[in-house]
Amino acid sequence: MNSITALLYGSDRPGIVAKVAGWIHERGSNVLHADQHLDRQENVFFQRIEWECISNSDPKLEGIAFQQMVETELGMSVRIGYDDDKPRIGVMVSKADHCLHDLALRVRSGEWNAELIGVLSNHQDLQEISESYQLPFHYFNLTQGSRIEEEANQIEWIREQKIELLILARYMQILSKQFLETVECPVINIHHSFLPSFAGAKPYHQAYTRGVKLIGATAHYVTEDLDEGPIIGQDVTRVSHRHGPKDLIEKGRDLEKMVLSTAVRRHLQNRVLVYQNKTVVFD
Amino acid sequence: MNSITALLYGSDRPGIVAKVAGWIHERGSNVLHADQHLDRQENVFFQRIEWECISNSDPKLEGIAFQQMVETELGMSVRIGYDDDKPRIGVMVSKADHCLHDLALRVRSGEWNAELIGVLSNHQDLQEISESYQLPFHYFNLTQGSRIEEEANQIEWIREQKIELLILARYMQILSKQFLETVECPVINIHHSFLPSFAGAKPYHQAYTRGVKLIGATAHYVTEDLDEGPIIGQDVTRVSHRHGPKDLIEKGRDLEKMVLSTAVRRHLQNRVLVYQNKTVVFD
Amino acid sequence: MNSITALLYGSDRPGIVAKVAGWIHERGSNVLHADQHLDRQENVFFQRIEWECISNSDPKLEGIAFQQMVETELGMSVRIGYDDDKPRIGVMVSKADHCLHDLALRVRSGEWNAELIGVLSNHQDLQEISESYQLPFHYFNLTQGSRIEEEANQIEWIREQKIELLILARYMQILSKQFLETVECPVINIHHSFLPSFAGAKPYHQAYTRGVKLIGATAHYVTEDLDEGPIIGQDVTRVSHRHGPKDLIEKGRDLEKMVLSTAVRRHLQNRVLVYQNKTVVFD
Amino acid sequence: MNSITALLYGSDRPGIVAKVAGWIHERGSNVLHADQHLDRQENVFFQRIEWECISNSDPKLEGIAFQQMVETELGMSVRIGYDDDKPRIGVMVSKADHCLHDLALRVRSGEWNAELIGVLSNHQDLQEISESYQLPFHYFNLTQGSRIEEEANQIEWIREQKIELLILARYMQILSKQFLETVECPVINIHHSFLPSFAGAKPYHQAYTRGVKLIGATAHYVTEDLDEGPIIGQDVTRVSHRHGPKDLIEKGRDLEKMVLSTAVRRHLQNRVLVYQNKTVVFD
Repeated sequence: MNSITALLYGSDRPGIVAKVAGWIHERGSNVLHADQHLDRQENVFFQRIEWECISNSDPKLEGIAFQQMVETELGMSVRIGYDDDKPRIGVMVSKADHCLHDLALRVRSGEWNAELIGVLSNHQDLQEISESYQLPFHYFNLTQGSRIEEEANQIEWIREQKIELLILARYMQILSKQFLETVECPVINIHHSFLPSFAGAKPYHQAYTRGVKLIGATAHYVTEDLDEGPIIGQDVTRVSHRHGPKDLIEKGRDLEKMVLSTAVRRHLQNRVLVYQNKTVVFD
Repeated sequence: MNSITALLYGSDRPGIVAKVAGWIHERGSNVLHADQHLDRQENVFFQRIEWECISNSDPKLEGIAFQQMVETELGMSVRIGYDDDKPRIGVMVSKADHCLHDLALRVRSGEWNAELIGVLSNHQDLQEISESYQLPFHYFNLTQGSRIEEEANQIEWIREQKIELLILARYMQILSKQFLETVECPVINIHHSFLPSFAGAKPYHQAYTRGVKLIGATAHYVTEDLDEGPIIGQDVTRVSHRHGPKDLIEKGRDLEKMVLSTAVRRHLQNRVLVYQNKTVVFD
Repeated sequence: MNSITALLYGSDRPGIVAKVAGWIHERGSNVLHADQHLDRQENVFFQRIEWECISNSDPKLEGIAFQQMVETELGMSVRIGYDDDKPRIGVMVSKADHCLHDLALRVRSGEWNAELIGVLSNHQDLQEISESYQLPFHYFNLTQGSRIEEEANQIEWIREQKIELLILARYMQILSKQFLETVECPVINIHHSFLPSFAGAKPYHQAYTRGVKLIGATAHYVTEDLDEGPIIGQDVTRVSHRHGPKDLIEKGRDLEKMVLSTAVRRHLQNRVLVYQNKTVVFD
Repeated sequence: MNSITALLYGSDRPGIVAKVAGWIHERGSNVLHADQHLDRQENVFFQRIEWECISNSDPKLEGIAFQQMVETELGMSVRIGYDDDKPRIGVMVSKADHCLHDLALRVRSGEWNAELIGVLSNHQDLQEISESYQLPFHYFNLTQGSRIEEEANQIEWIREQKIELLILARYMQILSKQFLETVECPVINIHHSFLPSFAGAKPYHQAYTRGVKLIGATAHYVTEDLDEGPIIGQDVTRVSHRHGPKDLIEKGRDLEKMVLSTAVRRHLQNRVLVYQNKTVVFD
């Protein structure tokens, strides 16, 4: 099967749905899924549409033709995905290994159509684990003095490797403004709290001190404002007075794995549009 | 706003989406929401589409024209709803009052666009409560001998009152095959278990005996096969060895209210299609 | 059955459990439930213990004797409850009626062993509803100028009526420092967010703006620091980009009812101990 | 720290709690946690109690002394655990690897105090994965003809290796009555449905056909009655008409891992008592 997925958004106006569906039909193709959303406050239209490309033409060419039509005739933004896409992923880690294992096993099992290219870290702890999955491991010694240079090295690796998605899998180092301006792919982070509660450092300790009855995890795209980026997914789990900070950290691990992997899946399946620091998730 | 909602289903074929969206656009109207599903195993296409009717013509006439187009040109089944629909609901109860309160309060608060017309019961216990909501209460003395006649009386009331939805709000009496063949409106029941577990009588006692760690509730359309109808919604709540049958019954009440009201909302908003004893819920 | 429930807490030391259980056994009584917690960081011991008082003596006298023993011999704080306690509850509301209905129906159904005494409000909207439950309704015209006097009137009513628990059932007015210092009963509030996220005004609008994927509700004891009191219970429900502020408010209503009623149940069953602005909930 | 955990159960009678706590106190030890349950219908008392053994005597001797006291003086059953216990676990698998990875990673991360000894399988697929965790892999060719002999070989390995817990991590072969009578350790299985719904083969296909809105997983002790053993834990996840059998299988994997690992943790921490084919879980 040759399927194409398009994510569109832009100002709403009459006839978008008819225009898009009509174009696909005229090309001899057939719509498999379509989901749309209209933000009536902002008058912005969002659509995810997936179709089977049954013409003789190359799906890649069809995608380009579709994109041109949407941009020129509808004045909308569009992102195109193909069913044989296999995005190249870079993973950034520090010392905690649970998210790295989870991502590596999902890719290896074929659950996702994606490729893990390598692991970047500011610590050397996870070298052996990375290599056990045949993932090249790159250590960057980020000190006060070396940070600018080392981040430049990270960016260089990301470019050379043509990384299309960067996952911060419990990477406990803030990415600089410059890093984020230079990196050209989306960056997904897992924060170990139910944002906006407990942004910043040691969220489980904060949660323990406040005495909340649920702890959470939040996956979001990284922006310059720490822990303020568009939220892709969140989940919570129940805790009680019996759980000390160490228990929260342990319970949180499973939550972090689930929330991060769900967000990555949504991203890889072209289900997420970002708009006004929020996400539209067609799930 | 004059909005029209259509629920379509039938054999898939190329161009349905384009045809439907094109028709709406040509009439000068604008699609507000559209959601669709393709059952690839059965090759059946389902769609819920809602549009703003901005032509000068009467929305009711537009709806009829749309229906004709879909039936004749696409050979599909369709059901049409209008935003000023206010379905007439009949409620059947026995002795438990929690679902009746919940339904009556939701209608009264304007949460749903619907009208409660009256309450039918095989017991007299809830007469006062029904009347406190200005709901006429009708008692039917269903004994072995009187059942056929009394069910005929119930059907007569349902017809006279032009009931469009019948809700079994913990009605603890099985509707006969004949009742179900005669009644012309959909019937929604709340069963107090996570079906298909614990069908039949005393599900909380069954759950207690089996030692499950979650109890559930299931809302479904009623069919001739008891507790076997298409499921509209389900939910569960956590229980432990500390909960005896009485505790399960009490915990279950909140679950039943939530699951039943969610199912009724979905039905009233034209979000549910039934197919092969299952539902497609566009939520 | 004559059962007594005691909630104890104080510095841990060897032999508390033996001492407490031994005392009950010597009086010829039998422990029904016991649950305990040791905060190892602070070295504080907490216990909830319930026993059947089978001696001939009056349970009230047994409770007093137990309290004396715990205070003098163990140097711990203790609170005693009896199975025929029927706490007198006052409810404060503004304009939203859903929590008031929920509380009134639970009390009326016998779900809780408690009595609703009356409703206090800074608006007149819910007078009719209150009276439909035979609950006296008291309106207080809280303006900038009248606030001190009107709060004094509220306190007077609370004292005269011997209110033992005050529930803020979506009361949209901040209680003054002086009110809280003067009122002698615990005060439970329901805040319509997952605290500490979105404290303060219009939490659903805040949640919408931030683009969270779950909304929550939090029941807590009221302290002088707004929305900062000890949390008794919290829960969340899933939302998406499809939900505008109005939808969040509607979805939130069910959440608020459930979270508030769960917290009130825990309080009424003597399951909650407050310590360092957190709660120990023996549930 | 030298802590001892005891799980007791037997006919209720006055003074059990006092006797147990008194004994521990007299030995100079201190209770850390205690939780109890009284089944009032059956008059059976259950307790989990954990204490710090601060006497000079060997914890093992203290445990034996406690056991003798409980058995002789209270006539109750008791099971004792020590904080340096490190149960030897055998894992049985077929072709699915997700639960094996999950168990192996949890043990390796030190999340559990336990040792994986080896993997038994009726297929050769997971040999390489097992060995990547340094786990000896044993293949048993279970055919109609060889079954009795091969099961005897499995039992022999279990005995030789002094296995204390056997985990069926998606082992798709029914254990014979004889196997279960001969094996001397508890056996935990993960069934990929919300039991008692969809017992037997292909539960996800059954769930798809019935059109349920939640799928589940159930961890239980294995008994001779297939899928009928005492339930240790269950959980569910939401599905919709969009999920075909393949999607359910994929979604179910995460559920199975979580439910199985939660049940194993409860078992390893001596939190589970079995009674009348149900469990009391002190969690």
